[in-house]
Amino acid sequence: MIDLQRRLVAEALGTGLLVATVVGSGIMAETLTIDVALALLANTIATSAILVVLISALSPISGAHFNPAVSLVFALRRELPWTNAGLYALVQVLGGIIGAVVAHAMFELPLLQVSAHVRTGGAQWFSEGVAAFGLVVVILAGLRFERKAVPMLVGLYITAAYWFTASTSFANPAVAIARSLTDTFSGIRPLDLPGFVLAQFTGAMIALTLMTWLLRVPNAGNLPINPEDPA
Amino acid sequence: MIDLQRRLVAEALGTGLLVATVVGSGIMAETLTIDVALALLANTIATSAILVVLISALSPISGAHFNPAVSLVFALRRELPWTNAGLYALVQVLGGIIGAVVAHAMFELPLLQVSAHVRTGGAQWFSEGVAAFGLVVVILAGLRFERKAVPMLVGLYITAAYWFTASTSFANPAVAIARSLTDTFSGIRPLDLPGFVLAQFTGAMIALTLMTWLLRVPNAGNLPINPEDPA
Amino acid sequence: MIDLQRRLVAEALGTGLLVATVVGSGIMAETLTIDVALALLANTIATSAILVVLISALSPISGAHFNPAVSLVFALRRELPWTNAGLYALVQVLGGIIGAVVAHAMFELPLLQVSAHVRTGGAQWFSEGVAAFGLVVVILAGLRFERKAVPMLVGLYITAAYWFTASTSFANPAVAIARSLTDTFSGIRPLDLPGFVLAQFTGAMIALTLMTWLLRVPNAGNLPINPEDPA
Amino acid sequence: MIDLQRRLVAEALGTGLLVATVVGSGIMAETLTIDVALALLANTIATSAILVVLISALSPISGAHFNPAVSLVFALRRELPWTNAGLYALVQVLGGIIGAVVAHAMFELPLLQVSAHVRTGGAQWFSEGVAAFGLVVVILAGLRFERKAVPMLVGLYITAAYWFTASTSFANPAVAIARSLTDTFSGIRPLDLPGFVLAQFTGAMIALTLMTWLLRVPNAGNLPINPEDPA
Repeated sequence: MIDLQRRLVAEALGTGLLVATVVGSGIMAETLTIDVALALLANTIATSAILVVLISALSPISGAHFNPAVSLVFALRRELPWTNAGLYALVQVLGGIIGAVVAHAMFELPLLQVSAHVRTGGAQWFSEGVAAFGLVVVILAGLRFERKAVPMLVGLYITAAYWFTASTSFANPAVAIARSLTDTFSGIRPLDLPGFVLAQFTGAMIALTLMTWLLRVPNAGNLPINPEDPA
Repeated sequence: MIDLQRRLVAEALGTGLLVATVVGSGIMAETLTIDVALALLANTIATSAILVVLISALSPISGAHFNPAVSLVFALRRELPWTNAGLYALVQVLGGIIGAVVAHAMFELPLLQVSAHVRTGGAQWFSEGVAAFGLVVVILAGLRFERKAVPMLVGLYITAAYWFTASTSFANPAVAIARSLTDTFSGIRPLDLPGFVLAQFTGAMIALTLMTWLLRVPNAGNLPINPEDPA
Repeated sequence: MIDLQRRLVAEALGTGLLVATVVGSGIMAETLTIDVALALLANTIATSAILVVLISALSPISGAHFNPAVSLVFALRRELPWTNAGLYALVQVLGGIIGAVVAHAMFELPLLQVSAHVRTGGAQWFSEGVAAFGLVVVILAGLRFERKAVPMLVGLYITAAYWFTASTSFANPAVAIARSLTDTFSGIRPLDLPGFVLAQFTGAMIALTLMTWLLRVPNAGNLPINPEDPA
Repeated sequence: MIDLQRRLVAEALGTGLLVATVVGSGIMAETLTIDVALALLANTIATSAILVVLISALSPISGAHFNPAVSLVFALRRELPWTNAGLYALVQVLGGIIGAVVAHAMFELPLLQVSAHVRTGGAQWFSEGVAAFGLVVVILAGLRFERKAVPMLVGLYITAAYWFTASTSFANPAVAIARSLTDTFSGIRPLDLPGFVLAQFTGAMIALTLMTWLLRVPNAGNLPINPEDPA
């Protein structure tokens, strides 16, 4: 067991670099092009790439949650004590905020900002619910069947979710809070945070319920890719 | 052996998330840009990414066919009972339709739509035949030589096939049916479904025939990358 | 040892699908956008993706050369009999031509065409030499150090080489010949073939010479990533 | 232990091909499009792809540093003798310069150029510090936890860093020097080199300090992805 201090530093460092990437790549993209799809594509690629990197590099230390909804899932599965889950969430939020400030400093923008980007309404909330649902499905199935592939699977899932949800898949309360503090491409109005965060936790809980049932199978560790195959 | 109930849920869930991604990312892309190549590129990247994720996450449960033509191939290879193949196809279609509805809900569009996107004619059918042929070649060779790489290989194959076929490679009867129910970027007119589905099954059958012959070799499990290499 | 018949079919099938992808994705891309960089990006992504797929799927059968310059390298290394190398080159060219015809059929274009795309001059030849040099460096080092990664490494190398060479890195005499038979995005004027092919073989030979020296080291199979590291 | 001669050739070859890719893909991209974001995306994809390839192919020979800041880190960790670190840096710079010249030759440009691209000021320096900090974090954590993934992790990190830093993440003194000798897309004014190089070394040193503390844990080789998981 790694000491809690190092684990909290890893969660803060990871969430910070994740948010710096989300915010920074959004600023870079909207500076360089007027095509919003191209900007979102650059934002997507940068975010997914850093996710694979950060989960690979830091999961052996802290589990690389970087996301209070994910930490809640592990707490409910009794794989993370509740106190630790609370501390994880706290440093995730703090790390995320520092990440936004670092991004602003790199692009010579005011360090502290408040987003005016409206993201609200039922369709947006439904999108965030679906996004978080899919994320937890992927994490739980990945940990169950092929632990080493989890970083890549999460990165690829977010690649898709940036595009198939109407909300560009925040899927992360800590990142959402940090993104409320940037008035750039990836921002979200603070007023719209509660709806997003509630939807994210709801989607994560539904996924936890479904996957707890779906993965309750004997000998699944040895399941072949084609389950009818006797080999 | 995992119980049939969970396997059918996995097939429905996977096909649903796949169609939600195909349809949703198409809507997002055409909303953000007027450049059709850029829209197709976003559509491609999202679809391929979710394919890798879904096959990795769900193949240990159901085989992750998500595609009646693939289930038919396994039935013909006697690796899936015919009853199960029929049930697989049924839940794939149902899951796909739900996926299209979910995508519409996320983007605040009418939940039920009928596509007016014309996709017909010999060149389109030939494209779908080639697309499904290549897909089954990749799946059978991948399962034979490097089972763990199959999710990535299928994702990369579809990446290419979106572009090298004139039909953007549906290559999947269940997804084609679901796509007939969205009047957005990725739709197909219901009238054009039979030609697509027939071409897909035909291509799959040709690939099954070819690969059954090509892969009938002794000791292939230990084949070196350079077959002349004695090492 | 797999019989020669199946190996030749694998080489023809692989080169055919490779050329169908190069040519088909080029046609699709130039149809959808007027931005040449975007068209080349789509062409790049499709080509690289199918390369990874085809090498993974077919290398256990034939070695997945798909390229006479690569077959020549293995013949010179005495890992492929000269007769077989000649037959490999022959079916690679035939497969490639069929691939171009298939691409034309999918896009409703005249099946037989002659390219008018001028690609000549010292800078283009130097580019092709560099492209083939790099390709052979990657293949030989990959086979030496991490055989299973070769498909991905070749795909990623071609991704880069499409962009860092002025010729978009044909790097393959069989593919070059096939591309002379399409008057679309990826074509090359037949008159310009000899310069390209000569440059490709030259680059491959230089790489073979360099790598034969560079890789002649004891115990290299156990070399750590950081060579000074005693662990 | 591989002899120093081969290791120096590997470092020069790798840095040369890296710079040829950075410079060449930049020239190709700005030739083909007026959209700067699209040009940067092509530049990013080519650079990241070749990084994965070169690190995979050459790290068993030389460690594949290609970067004096990385060689300095290993020297400070006593994993590379100081003399060798100096020689590594020397051939990295020489190889990089040759790479720039090769790129110019491929694109029929004057072989020797001096960049006029201004890249200076506190925000740019801070960006380079962050870029090099992240690079060393990734390398040290990757070597510690999953050595075989290092090439992919570095490639993906640079993919993200091209976009989330305001300086497009040179993160490499040898590459920066070589890029001062090209008056194209990826150039940097020689006058601006000292600020970049100093920032890069500073970021690398901070990362070394942090990671030396963070990775000082018992039994980390067996750490599960979720550290609370007893399995």
